[in-house]
Amino acid sequence: VKRSRAVVLREFGAQLDLAEFEVPEPGPGAAVVAVELGGICGTDAHLQRGHLPMPLPVVLGHEAVGRVIGLGDGLDRDVLGQPIAPGDLVTWASSIACGRCHWCLREQEPTLCADRAVYGINRRADRWPHLSGAWADAIYLHPGTTLVAVPDGLEPVDVIALGCAGPTAVHGVLRLAAPGFGDTVVVQGSGPVGLAAAIYAGRSGAGRVVLVGGPAGRLELARELGIADVCLDIFEVEDPATRARLVLAETPGGRGADLVVECTGSPPAVAQGIDLCRPNGTYLILGQYTDRGPTPLNPHLITRKQLRVLGSWAFSGGHFVDYVESLPRLVERFELHRLVSTYPLESAGQALDDVRAGRVVKAALRPSRSALV
Amino acid sequence: VKRSRAVVLREFGAQLDLAEFEVPEPGPGAAVVAVELGGICGTDAHLQRGHLPMPLPVVLGHEAVGRVIGLGDGLDRDVLGQPIAPGDLVTWASSIACGRCHWCLREQEPTLCADRAVYGINRRADRWPHLSGAWADAIYLHPGTTLVAVPDGLEPVDVIALGCAGPTAVHGVLRLAAPGFGDTVVVQGSGPVGLAAAIYAGRSGAGRVVLVGGPAGRLELARELGIADVCLDIFEVEDPATRARLVLAETPGGRGADLVVECTGSPPAVAQGIDLCRPNGTYLILGQYTDRGPTPLNPHLITRKQLRVLGSWAFSGGHFVDYVESLPRLVERFELHRLVSTYPLESAGQALDDVRAGRVVKAALRPSRSALV
Amino acid sequence: VKRSRAVVLREFGAQLDLAEFEVPEPGPGAAVVAVELGGICGTDAHLQRGHLPMPLPVVLGHEAVGRVIGLGDGLDRDVLGQPIAPGDLVTWASSIACGRCHWCLREQEPTLCADRAVYGINRRADRWPHLSGAWADAIYLHPGTTLVAVPDGLEPVDVIALGCAGPTAVHGVLRLAAPGFGDTVVVQGSGPVGLAAAIYAGRSGAGRVVLVGGPAGRLELARELGIADVCLDIFEVEDPATRARLVLAETPGGRGADLVVECTGSPPAVAQGIDLCRPNGTYLILGQYTDRGPTPLNPHLITRKQLRVLGSWAFSGGHFVDYVESLPRLVERFELHRLVSTYPLESAGQALDDVRAGRVVKAALRPSRSALV
Amino acid sequence: VKRSRAVVLREFGAQLDLAEFEVPEPGPGAAVVAVELGGICGTDAHLQRGHLPMPLPVVLGHEAVGRVIGLGDGLDRDVLGQPIAPGDLVTWASSIACGRCHWCLREQEPTLCADRAVYGINRRADRWPHLSGAWADAIYLHPGTTLVAVPDGLEPVDVIALGCAGPTAVHGVLRLAAPGFGDTVVVQGSGPVGLAAAIYAGRSGAGRVVLVGGPAGRLELARELGIADVCLDIFEVEDPATRARLVLAETPGGRGADLVVECTGSPPAVAQGIDLCRPNGTYLILGQYTDRGPTPLNPHLITRKQLRVLGSWAFSGGHFVDYVESLPRLVERFELHRLVSTYPLESAGQALDDVRAGRVVKAALRPSRSALV
Repeated sequence: VKRSRAVVLREFGAQLDLAEFEVPEPGPGAAVVAVELGGICGTDAHLQRGHLPMPLPVVLGHEAVGRVIGLGDGLDRDVLGQPIAPGDLVTWASSIACGRCHWCLREQEPTLCADRAVYGINRRADRWPHLSGAWADAIYLHPGTTLVAVPDGLEPVDVIALGCAGPTAVHGVLRLAAPGFGDTVVVQGSGPVGLAAAIYAGRSGAGRVVLVGGPAGRLELARELGIADVCLDIFEVEDPATRARLVLAETPGGRGADLVVECTGSPPAVAQGIDLCRPNGTYLILGQYTDRGPTPLNPHLITRKQLRVLGSWAFSGGHFVDYVESLPRLVERFELHRLVSTYPLESAGQALDDVRAGRVVKAALRPSRSALV
Repeated sequence: VKRSRAVVLREFGAQLDLAEFEVPEPGPGAAVVAVELGGICGTDAHLQRGHLPMPLPVVLGHEAVGRVIGLGDGLDRDVLGQPIAPGDLVTWASSIACGRCHWCLREQEPTLCADRAVYGINRRADRWPHLSGAWADAIYLHPGTTLVAVPDGLEPVDVIALGCAGPTAVHGVLRLAAPGFGDTVVVQGSGPVGLAAAIYAGRSGAGRVVLVGGPAGRLELARELGIADVCLDIFEVEDPATRARLVLAETPGGRGADLVVECTGSPPAVAQGIDLCRPNGTYLILGQYTDRGPTPLNPHLITRKQLRVLGSWAFSGGHFVDYVESLPRLVERFELHRLVSTYPLESAGQALDDVRAGRVVKAALRPSRSALV
Repeated sequence: VKRSRAVVLREFGAQLDLAEFEVPEPGPGAAVVAVELGGICGTDAHLQRGHLPMPLPVVLGHEAVGRVIGLGDGLDRDVLGQPIAPGDLVTWASSIACGRCHWCLREQEPTLCADRAVYGINRRADRWPHLSGAWADAIYLHPGTTLVAVPDGLEPVDVIALGCAGPTAVHGVLRLAAPGFGDTVVVQGSGPVGLAAAIYAGRSGAGRVVLVGGPAGRLELARELGIADVCLDIFEVEDPATRARLVLAETPGGRGADLVVECTGSPPAVAQGIDLCRPNGTYLILGQYTDRGPTPLNPHLITRKQLRVLGSWAFSGGHFVDYVESLPRLVERFELHRLVSTYPLESAGQALDDVRAGRVVKAALRPSRSALV
Repeated sequence: VKRSRAVVLREFGAQLDLAEFEVPEPGPGAAVVAVELGGICGTDAHLQRGHLPMPLPVVLGHEAVGRVIGLGDGLDRDVLGQPIAPGDLVTWASSIACGRCHWCLREQEPTLCADRAVYGINRRADRWPHLSGAWADAIYLHPGTTLVAVPDGLEPVDVIALGCAGPTAVHGVLRLAAPGFGDTVVVQGSGPVGLAAAIYAGRSGAGRVVLVGGPAGRLELARELGIADVCLDIFEVEDPATRARLVLAETPGGRGADLVVECTGSPPAVAQGIDLCRPNGTYLILGQYTDRGPTPLNPHLITRKQLRVLGSWAFSGGHFVDYVESLPRLVERFELHRLVSTYPLESAGQALDDVRAGRVVKAALRPSRSALV
C-alpha cells in the first residue's frame, strides 16, 4: 500500500498542514494520478484566508498535471477518445458539473451548476478518498472527471504555466467576448488571468494587445515573450486619467479599444476600464472572482457608449479541453515555461505567500514521485 | 406665403417662446409637413433645463406625425417605396446620420454618428429654414429624412403614443437584448420607455412581463391595457430588498428574470436591477440618457452571475421604420391612444411641467392647422 | 410481479409483435412508469420499414407521457427540482447523451453525440430491462433520463399532441432560427413538425405565419386552431411557381419570407423553399430526417440572396424541458388535443398505417393501465 | 484640358475598345484620380461575355488604386477622417449604395441595395462624366464614394493584389462565417477569392488552413507565401472521394473542418464541400457569383450534420474600409505583390484572356500617367 502526502487546509488563516493518506485503488471509471505539478492560483490565496465559501478540511490544489498510476474499470480513453494507460501524462478539469440541472441542461452553462464538485476546493479531506486536491503526491480522480491526455511534445510545466487562468480566458475571451480580426484589445492586470487573456486575444486575430499592469518585471517578461504589443506600468503611471490618455492613444483614431478585459480583481479598475472602451465596444469583467463590494460606476456611460459589459464565471470541462488542445499552438509561439516558479510540496505556505506578494508570476508545487513508494 | 408658429427654446431654464416663421417651399428632396401632433419626451424636460449639450435657439420637438403640405423635386415615395402626396399622413425619424463615417459605415451604428442632425434638438432656429422642430404648425424636413407614410387605419394619436420611446425600445429590446420565447422580462420604470419596453417584450414572445414603477394610476393603466402581467408599485413597496423578493417570486424557480430592462434614468435603479437578473441573464440599460453621475455597483455580481449588461443609445432610421411598421400590430392589441394627453401649442410650458411632474403618461402638442392659413 | 405488454419490432417490414415482459423494480436513479399515451411519429413509419439504422428487436415508441409506478433510490425530484412520487404524471426526453464526448462537452450539441441511447429506437428488447419503448403498458427509465413532471392542469393528450415534433421545433425554430418580432414565417409541410414550427413561430412574435401543406382537412384544422394566418393547399395549387407567387404576395413588399421552415421531408421542397426566402433571410431545413438522396439546388441563389441555410437535428434534454415548460402557454391558446387520434395498444399496426397515409394528424397509443395488474 | 484613355466594353463578347474622354473637373464632393493600377477580376471575364446583367457601353474596372488629381468642394478628408490632397495615394469601394432603402436602412446590408451604382459595371460610358471605370488613365469618383487614403508604407501593388476578393473575404469570412481560434478551415479554390479567404482565416486565429485548388504553380506560391498550411492539387487528385478522405485526415479526429469556404464558382464543388464540413460546422458559399444553374445536393446532410450554410454577396463600403485598414498587417506577413502580373492599358484584352485561362493569379492594368498630360 502506497501513501501520499497532501497539503491540507484545516482552518482559515492558519498554517497549512502536510498530512499523509493511503492511496486508494481506483474504482470503476476513476483514476489515480501521481501529481507532477500542482498549480497555485490567486484563488488559493483567498481560499486560505476564508474569503470564499468552502468546507474544511480540504486538500488544496485545483490545477494539476500528472502521470496515471492506476485506471479503474471502463476507463481507458480520455475525453477526446485517445487511449490512456499508466505512465501517461494527463491533466483534468477541476470541476464536475451535475449534467442534469437547469444550468447544465437548459442553459448549457455548467459553470453555474450549483452541484459542481471541485477538486481542491469543495471535496472534503476527512472523507474517502481523501486525496481530492492536487497539492499532493497523488490525487484520486472520480468518474466523470474531464481527463485529457497531454498532447505530445508538451512538458508538465507547459500545462501548468497558465493554470486555470488558461481555460478561464478560453471561456471569457474566446467564447464570450470573441475579439475579431484586427481588434485592439486592452487587458487590465498582468497576473496569470491577464497574461492568458492577452495571449488568447493576440492569437485569435487581435491587431494590437495593450497590457496595463505591473510590476515592471512582469511587464518586461510579457514583452519579451511577445504576449503584448504595448505595456503600461501602473506603478510608473499612477494617475488613471493619464493612463487612459496613454491607452487611448494606442487605439485607432483614439476611439478606445474594441475589447477591454478586466483581470485585476480590483473593483475600481472597472470604472477605469469602461473609460478605455470605444463606443459600441465590449468590456469583459473576468477578474472579479472575489466579492470586494461595490464601486462607483456611471451607468450613463454604458448607455451613451452603447457598451456590452460581460461577466464570465470560471470554465467548463469543454473549455478545459479547448485549452489543452490549444497548448501546442501557444507553446510554439510563447515560452510559457518562463512564467513558472516551482516549489517542493512542503513549501506550499511559502509559495502562497509569494503569490500573494506578486513575487512570482506563476507558482507550482512539484511533489517528488519517490514519496509514493 | 404661409406662416407657422413654433415653440422656441432661447435660453436654458427660461420660458419657452412662441415665435412665428415663414413656411418655406421645399427644396429638392425636402418636404414641408403640417404637424398634427408633436410629442413631448422626458428628454425635452432635460433639454429645457440645459442638462444636455445643444445649440440655442432651437424649435423643440423631435417626435411628430403630420400631413404633407409640399414635396420637393424627386421626393414622391417614402423610404418603404410607398407613394406619398400632399395631404398624406406621415411620420419621420428625428435624426439624419452622415452615412459615411466610421460609425455609419463600419460599425453600422448610426446612433453613434457624431454628425447626426436631429430635429428639435441640434438644428438652430435662427438659420434657414428655421422650422426644424415639431412643436410648430409646420416643419421643414431636409433631404435624407427617414420619412414613412403612416400605415392605413392608424390615427395620429396612435403614432405619437409611444413617441421616441417606441423606436428606442425597438433598438434596445428587440435588436440588442432580443428576449426569447417564454422569457420572464422585468421592466424597471413605467414612463413611456418602460411601457414601450414592456409592450415589445410581451409581443415578442416573453412568457411574463413584470412592470416595476409608479405611480398607481399609471400601473393601473398598464394593467388595464394588458401591457404587463404583474405590476409592482414602488411608492407602495419602498424597500428595494422587499421589491426584489416580490419580483423574484414571479420568476421561474425564483432564479430571477431572463431579461431586466432599466427604464428609470435613476442611477440607483441599476444596482437594484442587477439583483433581479438570473445568472446568465441580460440587463439592458435603456433609460440612462442623462448623465447623473456614478452609483455604487458590485462588479463581482456581473462576474459571478455571468451577466450580459447592455447599453442601447437612441435609435436609427431603420429602427424607426421598424417601429412604424409594427404599429398596426400594437394598436390591434393595445389601446395606445389612452396613454396620450394633448395640449394646444401655446401650452407647451404647461405640458412640459406636467411631464416633469409625472401627471401625464404621454403629452403631445396639437397645433391647429388653420393657423397655417 | 406485474407484467406489461409491449409492441416489438422484430423484423423490418414485418408485422409488429405484441409481446409481454415482466415489469422490473427500478434500480438506483431509475423509474418505472405506466404509459398513458405513447405517440406515433413519422419516424416510426420509417423505422418499421428499416429506413434508418437500428438494432432489432426493439420495443417501439420514443414519445410518451405516463404515471410513475416506482422510483429507484435517489430519484425523488424531476430535472427542474420538483418533487415526484408514484402516481404523478411525467414525461421524458427520448434520448440520453453521454455527457462526456467532444459533442456533449465542447460543442454542447448532445443531439450529435454518437453514444445517445434512445428509448424506442436503439435499446434492445431482448436484454434487460426489455421495456425500453413507450408502446407498452410500462416503461423502464434508466438513470440519467431527463424526467419532467407534467405542469399542473395539463392532460396527457396535451403533452402528446405535438410529440417529438414539439421539442424538435423548439430546437430548430426557437434556438437556431430564432424568428424576430414581426417576421413573416413560411412553413412548408403541415404534419406535426410543420404545425409545431408554425405554433412556435407564431408565439415567438412572428407577424404572419403562412402554412403551405395539405390535405385540406389538416389545413382547415390549422386555421381553426389559429396555428396559421394563411394556408396554401399544395393539392389545390399544384404548380410550385404559382405557389411561390401566392406565398410571396403574403410577404411585405413581396420580398419573401424572413424565415422559411422546411418540414416536409421531401427533397424537392428545398428548392421551392429557397425561392420563398427574402434576400438576407433564413431557411431552416428541419424535416429532412431520412436520407432520400440529392435534389437539384442552385447554390448561386444562396450567394446572391445571401441566405443563411440551417440544419437542425433532433433535440436535447434541454430542448425537451423547454418544450414541456412551454406547454401551458401553448394549450392556453391552442386546442392541441384536437390534433390527436388514439388507438389501443393492439392496434399499433393500424395506427402506423394511418400515419403513413396521412389519415390522422397525430396518432397515439393508449395502453390500458388495468393490464398492469 | 486633359484627356484620358479608357477601355470600353461596347458589345458583349466583342473586342474591348480603347476610347478617349476628356477628364472633367470634380464637382462638389467628387474627386478625379489618376489610376495607378486597375485590377482585373474574374467577374470582368463574365461581364465581357454578357453573363451578368449590365448596361452598355461601360468603362470596365471596379478595382483600383490611384493618385488624387483633383478634389471637389467639401472633399478634403477620406472616410476615416484622414486629410487627403492631390498627389495622395487612394483607393475606393466600387459601389455606392443608396443609404435609404429597406436593405440599407433596416437590414443594414447595403450589398443587397437594388440601387447600387458600381464603377466599372453599371455606370454608362456614354454619359457624363464617362470616366466611371478603373481601366483608364483617370476615373471620376462621385460624391458618396467610400474613398480611403492608402496606409503609409503600402505600394499600389499591395492594394491591388487581392482586388475585390479582399473585401469580399472580409465580408464572408470575417463578418459572416467568423472562424474561431484554433479552427480548421478548408478553402475550395485557389483563385483570388480563395487566397483571400485563406489569408483572412489564417490571420484570424484558425489553427490550420487547407487549400484545395490548382494548378500546381498557384498552390506552390500559396505555400511559399505561407497562405495555407496544407495544399491539395485537384489536378493531381482528381477523384472527389479521395480528396475528401485526404482533407478529412487533416482535420481533428477526422471529424471534418469547422469551416469550409467555397471559392470556386463551380456548382459541383458545393456537394464536395458539404462532405468536408464537420457536424455542427459552417459552409460558406462565397464563390457562386455567376448563375451556373442547379447541382445535385443532399438536404438530408444539412439536417443530419446540423450545418450552417451561409451565402455572402459582394461587400459594402464598410467592408472595403476594413480591408484597407487590414492591409499593413497582411503585407507584414505575406508578400502579396508576388500575386500580381501587370499589363499596359492597351493589353486589357490579353490580360482578360490570361485571367480566363488561369495563366496568372492576379492581373492588373497599369496606365501610364504621362498619358494624362
